Amino acid sequence: MNAAAGNTLGTMMSSPLTIDVLVRRAASHGDTEIVSRTPDKTLVRTTWKKVAARATRLAHALVRAGVEPGDRIASLMWNHSEHVELYLGVPLAGAVLHTLNLRLHPDEIAYIAADAGDRMIIVDDVLLPLFEKIVAAGAKFERVFVVGAEPKGRERYEQLLESGEPTVLPTLHEDQALGTCYTSGTTGKPKGVVYTHRSTLLHSLVLALPDQLSLARRDTLMPVVPMFHVMAWGLPYGAAFVGCRLIMPGPFLDAANLVDLLVGERVTAAAGVPTLWIGIRDLVLALPEKPELQPGLRMIVGGSAAPLGLIRDFDTLGMPIVHAWGMTETSPVGLVSRVPPEADDLDYEAKLAIRAKQGLPPPLIEIDVRNEEGSVPHDDRTVGELVIRGPWVAGSYVGGHLPDRWTNDGFFRTEDVAKIDAMGIVQLTDRVTDLVKSGGEWISSQELENALMGHPAVKEAAVIGVQHEKWSERPIAIVVFREGQSATAEALRAYLAPSFAKFWLPDAFEIVESIPRTTTGKFLKTALRKTYKDYKL
Amino acid sequence: MNAAAGNTLGTMMSSPLTIDVLVRRAASHGDTEIVSRTPDKTLVRTTWKKVAARATRLAHALVRAGVEPGDRIASLMWNHSEHVELYLGVPLAGAVLHTLNLRLHPDEIAYIAADAGDRMIIVDDVLLPLFEKIVAAGAKFERVFVVGAEPKGRERYEQLLESGEPTVLPTLHEDQALGTCYTSGTTGKPKGVVYTHRSTLLHSLVLALPDQLSLARRDTLMPVVPMFHVMAWGLPYGAAFVGCRLIMPGPFLDAANLVDLLVGERVTAAAGVPTLWIGIRDLVLALPEKPELQPGLRMIVGGSAAPLGLIRDFDTLGMPIVHAWGMTETSPVGLVSRVPPEADDLDYEAKLAIRAKQGLPPPLIEIDVRNEEGSVPHDDRTVGELVIRGPWVAGSYVGGHLPDRWTNDGFFRTEDVAKIDAMGIVQLTDRVTDLVKSGGEWISSQELENALMGHPAVKEAAVIGVQHEKWSERPIAIVVFREGQSATAEALRAYLAPSFAKFWLPDAFEIVESIPRTTTGKFLKTALRKTYKDYKL
Repeated sequence: MNAAAGNTLGTMMSSPLTIDVLVRRAASHGDTEIVSRTPDKTLVRTTWKKVAARATRLAHALVRAGVEPGDRIASLMWNHSEHVELYLGVPLAGAVLHTLNLRLHPDEIAYIAADAGDRMIIVDDVLLPLFEKIVAAGAKFERVFVVGAEPKGRERYEQLLESGEPTVLPTLHEDQALGTCYTSGTTGKPKGVVYTHRSTLLHSLVLALPDQLSLARRDTLMPVVPMFHVMAWGLPYGAAFVGCRLIMPGPFLDAANLVDLLVGERVTAAAGVPTLWIGIRDLVLALPEKPELQPGLRMIVGGSAAPLGLIRDFDTLGMPIVHAWGMTETSPVGLVSRVPPEADDLDYEAKLAIRAKQGLPPPLIEIDVRNEEGSVPHDDRTVGELVIRGPWVAGSYVGGHLPDRWTNDGFFRTEDVAKIDAMGIVQLTDRVTDLVKSGGEWISSQELENALMGHPAVKEAAVIGVQHEKWSERPIAIVVFREGQSATAEALRAYLAPSFAKFWLPDAFEIVESIPRTTTGKFLKTALRKTYKDYKL
Repeated sequence: MNAAAGNTLGTMMSSPLTIDVLVRRAASHGDTEIVSRTPDKTLVRTTWKKVAARATRLAHALVRAGVEPGDRIASLMWNHSEHVELYLGVPLAGAVLHTLNLRLHPDEIAYIAADAGDRMIIVDDVLLPLFEKIVAAGAKFERVFVVGAEPKGRERYEQLLESGEPTVLPTLHEDQALGTCYTSGTTGKPKGVVYTHRSTLLHSLVLALPDQLSLARRDTLMPVVPMFHVMAWGLPYGAAFVGCRLIMPGPFLDAANLVDLLVGERVTAAAGVPTLWIGIRDLVLALPEKPELQPGLRMIVGGSAAPLGLIRDFDTLGMPIVHAWGMTETSPVGLVSRVPPEADDLDYEAKLAIRAKQGLPPPLIEIDVRNEEGSVPHDDRTVGELVIRGPWVAGSYVGGHLPDRWTNDGFFRTEDVAKIDAMGIVQLTDRVTDLVKSGGEWISSQELENALMGHPAVKEAAVIGVQHEKWSERPIAIVVFREGQSATAEALRAYLAPSFAKFWLPDAFEIVESIPRTTTGKFLKTALRKTYKDYKL
């Protein structure tokens, strides 16, 4: 027997997955462009090589400014090359990038900045008015740096960079914090998630795979998803790995400016939420001539479900949609929907239906759908809660909040209700909190709502559960009629009856003038539940 | 300030990169096929789900048979689904798969098996005659299992599987040994490299990226490269990640059988060495009708450089070559050659020249080319030694041999001489040991040989360095003339003169009948150097 026998160790290099590897790779992409739309609408062009050099300078400047490993550095910025510099340079200094969501209320941003313990902040000049409101709401930062025009009484980001003469950067380890994001928190206070160097590098490598978002050096990628929204879905890091061109829309997320970039910069992959894509569809359909899009352009959709009709419309436009699902807690890529080869013989409509599902997990991610009896069968029918685990899934929240969001076997509970088909493809049907549990059986409020909104008299309908002595919960429907129309409760129930089990039918129909909505347009069910808390059936 | 501030740890799950994740993923690919050519030439079809289940059973069986973490389990096998089971199941048991190279001499195989400390071995029935020679050469194994026909006096692999009732598998950690391969060792004894779970999983994820070998679920992959050759370049693991179909040629690596599989199984990606591809080219060109190949079929080439003419020929056949470079020490994918977008405007011949180079490193791999003055400029001219580092590059050899193969900053010295162009693309020109160093300047023996073999009278030419008092080394050429032809030393020197600096020209031309070659057809320069050791100029 020899020295090798029984030795459980390998002979491979110790080579941690840390951001310095990615910064050096970004530098190797040389003159490949990063194009940013500035607030005055001009396009500014730089290169991966320059951005990598400036990111490195930023890291040195931060260390010279006294930033210590683990310190939080906030950004209040749109999508542009300086924000890419922060994505690379802040973690290169051992610090943690905290991308503040500028769409939240200033009070909420101030709360989040305090909860994260942000020490310094870098702000776009055009966002200074918002920034002053955040400060007025109580946020405190040791130093504030401004990108863009010469600010009054504030330090400039360029001055910070100028101070970045080479010094010793801290040694990074791969489980070290790299960035932090907060969930939008429709219930309770926002909760923080802290991504590591390892989780970020693994996530951005895997999202570039052909069956995932598919990124190659010859792509031109436009992340329309804001860089303050789950690290722009990891796309800037993926782009830094593969060395594709990067097009950054700055503050202009309207359809006209986006289509202008799609055409003018020959974009091959754009990524954003369905709402923005709807605007693009409507604009392109209204144009007198079809715009000259790059062949192979694909429109990556995430953030909320892509409706089947939208996927169909974009096929017609020659801009096929790639549908993905994720959460802040999953970095975010957790599922990607593509038609698998075994479905090649299905007709177009059946394939559309597959693409409108949330899809399959990428490598290294494991999912399960579970109800009280365990994992659900892959029958495209039985529902349960989607749970997920893998190297870029959160294992806890900052401060240890809500520990019951994790299962004993280490999966994160998404609170999304899902079913799985025979090909393993996941479809989300509800939020767990939107389900009604009647006599031990689940009733989907979303399915009832969608059906009710098919009735000619119904403009809007929301279904919630109210307490019931015998059945524990029973569904009731809150209905808004179309102008000048109405229907009786019996008529509405009769309309639903053919499509649902009898116990699913709402016990009552409450007619209202309007249903409260969230800022993103979803029904605000928490408000409805409060209103009907003591509803007597 | 809050608990998060200054906390350098993230909140992500601990999720090690270990083979169990990949085995569960393989199982999720369900009925996707693995097709193997058996020794009787029939095709046997199984599925990822079955192979994953059998691999799991194998792991349980090995643990029940007393296999401990770190134990070496050898395979002496062709490419087929049982070998895939070993790839997954042996490391799942915590053991280390040692794929013995059946092309080596039995004495050498016995030496390697002893050096690795192999405890058990699994052998193809058709390789039993070779196996008996290895045993006769002194190799010892506690147990021997045979795949295929009922063997005389040997245990069957299927019996081993039957014994695999569920038991407790050891907990795996990602830096644990997964597999071991030995370099073929043209100089000195073969040296072992031990891959880890982490290095293997990272390597196989990255090789599937669009700019690397590009593997997707809808691919049908045929690894012609033997599974005993650098873990079949990681392709079985990459396939297990993406869930593509896998076609295994078994013992039949002749062009007719391979083309039969390419056509019959609708292969979209095949991977092998240039020699085999030359056979395929010649066969296809000789066919009366062009075979019906799958559109998009690509021919991955590695193992040795793909000649430019071969790449051109395969373009003509509609089977474009993807050229990659690697070594046993690099798992192997270290460089992949693709035409970058900045070269799109070049003509076809210029693009061919790029594709014939070795290419660019994949994500996570860093390379440099260094001479005595440091990193060479990217001028496509200055040569130095290619060095490489990254998570799937060896950090040492088994037993700690040759520690000077690693630089102080952690790069592995490939002993390949290379230059880099302005796009960062690497081209190998020589082996370090094939260079002649004259008066402190390097002379490329390969370039002189290629030029000499362009002379109409020259059939073969090898250039080596011999000792020289003043210049330390000087080149001499060993020449074989074509039948009935000859040329004087003056004529040969005059033929070379226009293409080379004067100090490059060989000081002498030795005319011989033949030049000794290695089994793979390369000049055996070690033998030449021995012959001309005391050559006087």
